[in-house]
Amino acid sequence: MPYLPVIALERAGSEPLSAQIVAQMRSSILLGELHVGESVPSTRALAARLGVSRGSVVTAYDQLTGEGYLVSTQGAPTRVAVLVHEGDAALPTQSVVAPKSGPAPVVLDLTPGYPSTRRLSGRAWTAAWRRAAAQPIPHTEPPLQGTMALRTEVAQHLRHARGVLCSIDDIIVTAGTSEALALVAVALQERGGAGAALADRVGRAPLVAVETPGYPAAARVLRRLGVNLVSIPNEADGMPVRALDALANRVDAVLVTPSHQYPLGGRLPVEDRLRLLHWAQRTDAWIIEDDYDSEFRHVGPPLPALASLDNDGRVVLVGSFSKVLTPWLRVGYLVLPERAAVRDALLAVRGDLPGPVSGVVQEAAAALLSSGAVRRHIATARRDYAHRRRLVLESLSSVPGTTLTALDGGLHAVLELADQVVAGLAVSELLRRGIRVADLRDYSAEPVKSAVPAGLVFGYAACNDTALARALDQIRAVTAGTPTPNDGSEPCTAG
Amino acid sequence: MPYLPVIALERAGSEPLSAQIVAQMRSSILLGELHVGESVPSTRALAARLGVSRGSVVTAYDQLTGEGYLVSTQGAPTRVAVLVHEGDAALPTQSVVAPKSGPAPVVLDLTPGYPSTRRLSGRAWTAAWRRAAAQPIPHTEPPLQGTMALRTEVAQHLRHARGVLCSIDDIIVTAGTSEALALVAVALQERGGAGAALADRVGRAPLVAVETPGYPAAARVLRRLGVNLVSIPNEADGMPVRALDALANRVDAVLVTPSHQYPLGGRLPVEDRLRLLHWAQRTDAWIIEDDYDSEFRHVGPPLPALASLDNDGRVVLVGSFSKVLTPWLRVGYLVLPERAAVRDALLAVRGDLPGPVSGVVQEAAAALLSSGAVRRHIATARRDYAHRRRLVLESLSSVPGTTLTALDGGLHAVLELADQVVAGLAVSELLRRGIRVADLRDYSAEPVKSAVPAGLVFGYAACNDTALARALDQIRAVTAGTPTPNDGSEPCTAG
Repeated sequence: MPYLPVIALERAGSEPLSAQIVAQMRSSILLGELHVGESVPSTRALAARLGVSRGSVVTAYDQLTGEGYLVSTQGAPTRVAVLVHEGDAALPTQSVVAPKSGPAPVVLDLTPGYPSTRRLSGRAWTAAWRRAAAQPIPHTEPPLQGTMALRTEVAQHLRHARGVLCSIDDIIVTAGTSEALALVAVALQERGGAGAALADRVGRAPLVAVETPGYPAAARVLRRLGVNLVSIPNEADGMPVRALDALANRVDAVLVTPSHQYPLGGRLPVEDRLRLLHWAQRTDAWIIEDDYDSEFRHVGPPLPALASLDNDGRVVLVGSFSKVLTPWLRVGYLVLPERAAVRDALLAVRGDLPGPVSGVVQEAAAALLSSGAVRRHIATARRDYAHRRRLVLESLSSVPGTTLTALDGGLHAVLELADQVVAGLAVSELLRRGIRVADLRDYSAEPVKSAVPAGLVFGYAACNDTALARALDQIRAVTAGTPTPNDGSEPCTAG
Repeated sequence: MPYLPVIALERAGSEPLSAQIVAQMRSSILLGELHVGESVPSTRALAARLGVSRGSVVTAYDQLTGEGYLVSTQGAPTRVAVLVHEGDAALPTQSVVAPKSGPAPVVLDLTPGYPSTRRLSGRAWTAAWRRAAAQPIPHTEPPLQGTMALRTEVAQHLRHARGVLCSIDDIIVTAGTSEALALVAVALQERGGAGAALADRVGRAPLVAVETPGYPAAARVLRRLGVNLVSIPNEADGMPVRALDALANRVDAVLVTPSHQYPLGGRLPVEDRLRLLHWAQRTDAWIIEDDYDSEFRHVGPPLPALASLDNDGRVVLVGSFSKVLTPWLRVGYLVLPERAAVRDALLAVRGDLPGPVSGVVQEAAAALLSSGAVRRHIATARRDYAHRRRLVLESLSSVPGTTLTALDGGLHAVLELADQVVAGLAVSELLRRGIRVADLRDYSAEPVKSAVPAGLVFGYAACNDTALARALDQIRAVTAGTPTPNDGSEPCTAG
């Protein structure tokens, strides 16, 4: 008979036996005591073992199947399902991975940065692809900067959603933020080198200032492409401009997230934006504005993009549809500023490193934008995320010894903790319980992580409400218990 | 009345007047005397001007419209159509561009490298996209190396089409050859640098040997990504290995097109392949095999890929579906060799520079491959291309002072000419006549082009038979006339 953790029933209690079975099996699955794919006992066998009617077990299994914890296939034993994510049939295999230590599979993946796609499926999505596939098939690459249709729609989207006025000539279609940053990194190699091959300009690698904590994937892209980084520790609302002044004009570009600092969530005030633009003008630096999730603002009106304040033509705005739609799509954009030196450098690089986005994808994305499907999806998703954000606030805003931040917008939250040892232990313990969150420590571009605040980073958009509520319970239990991580006691829930 | 070049009718001739009008207007359009988009006289006005019945002009216009030279829209004047390419409704705008000098638009674009997509449209294509779009939408990026479905199909395709035995773990999905070469270029930065940022390894830029003439886009990608190039002049069948020996172990990798040297068309013999593999083993170099068009072999059996002879695990095979299907799709692949150092370096780079190919595209490409649509399309296209290749041979194999080559496989031909002055003049003259071909000179990665043979490179796959036949007439006329390019006489056709 397949393994099943002990189920202890209270026969004298007011709760029906089937409900008790449901609660205990659900918790075994969430805690990783039952693994994905493992078969559970037959209803007959379990009923015999527990000494209850078979009907109670059937009722319990039905409910667990309905909730997505179990899968039953005709003629095969009932098994533990892959959990949590809404579009679970489409889950790529990597989202269910065994943690490095311990046997529990990750059943609740709260890795930050992922949107919900449940409401994206449907007629508008399939119609957009049908329309893109029905067109005559060109025998060439898509145009250098992207198809007219997509660039037209992106320009319109940016005007409506971000207050950025740009024409189709200003837009380069990219495969997302990483690809856009790769273009910028290669273009920066030209600064001062005037067309020479990178290798001939020994010792003149571009220097880019990045926020710390910041977006680790951005740092990896830039480093891979020959850029040196200097980390600027964030202050309350983002990058302190006077830290740039201290670098004495050696910085070629700065990468910032002014609308919603990633991951801490600050919003760069207007005075600091103007100061940053002025600094860039004075030092002839580029500003790379990573506008990664400002479509989802939960508190206060969104500030327009930094690029919209740029009178000097040196802000390269980078955005994507990864959070607005899904990173599965691999579509983003870069908005060229007015300054000819910046434009020409980026267009020349794109000429040599051709755009990787399929023409069919570009036409489908254009169709989604022009049909209003994207606008509608943003509105619906924003409501969903606002609701989940409330769940996060309700659950975690009063855990002793912690501070909940980054919730003004976007799809993730930060729970700051006492110190990095505490945070590291919490991440491990949650992983042991089958819940994956990120360690704020890993958001530093520096090898020495001590300058970064301690805490957890987790996404609340991709999972459904029920799974999120359960994960939040676990996070609360674990972090409320962490101030004394070595006392060996059971974690207690905060009062 | 709209402009129309003089039409001189032979009223006493045996040819009907309408046929004479057709022939002369067609030639005016092909020669660029009538521009794309220009309106032509109404049937009534032209009939009056030529003194013929209106019916003759209506018949002529109908035929020209049927042949695609004219477009008539209800209520608007009849106009000169965008010509030549089969799927003309889908033509991206850049394929109709004014040449730098002279007013004639390019009406026949024989830029090499483009396939025919006419037979690609249809049920299998739309079904593949429908299938890909109908799947639940994941909220993550596609898997690091590509979706399982696509990698499974690519591995099978390579086994059938290229004799390469590889597993899905060996495949990285790319957006095409340029993107694959970018990955390799960045991975080569690690050689000897052991994880250090490029900028910290001053003066140690990787050195890659490339064929000259060779693929200019490849050279641009590699240079942009910090690779230094050394050009090896081709001998009859490709890269002479002893030229590599002369470089005394300083070369980190060599980029070769052993199946069908690009653009000259040689095929590296087995002894030279073994010698190349041996050289790479001795010097610890990587071999990048660009297998860009070997699905279309017209003469003799295809040799298996160089990678299939590689017992030492150092050949990185790069291929794409740009010629097999269309570059509009932006899908290709890289096959990892066995050697751990090479694999690990490439996978680490892919980890930092995430795959740009949309999951939907990957699923659609997998569906096209698994349904047999790709195999059927290759078979049909191969027949079409073989027929057009015969047209090229018939038209150009006996032009005095020229040598026709590169026709054993693929989608393009090379017409070698007396010297680079002659070739340059022929390219300009053809452009003046509205026909775009490439100058073999531009296939050198070196600033000094003298080492490269002189000639024209043109593609014969993308245009239809009729347009190709007309373009070949012009190429023959121009190149047969070029030995005395300054004599001011009309070009004569070769006897």
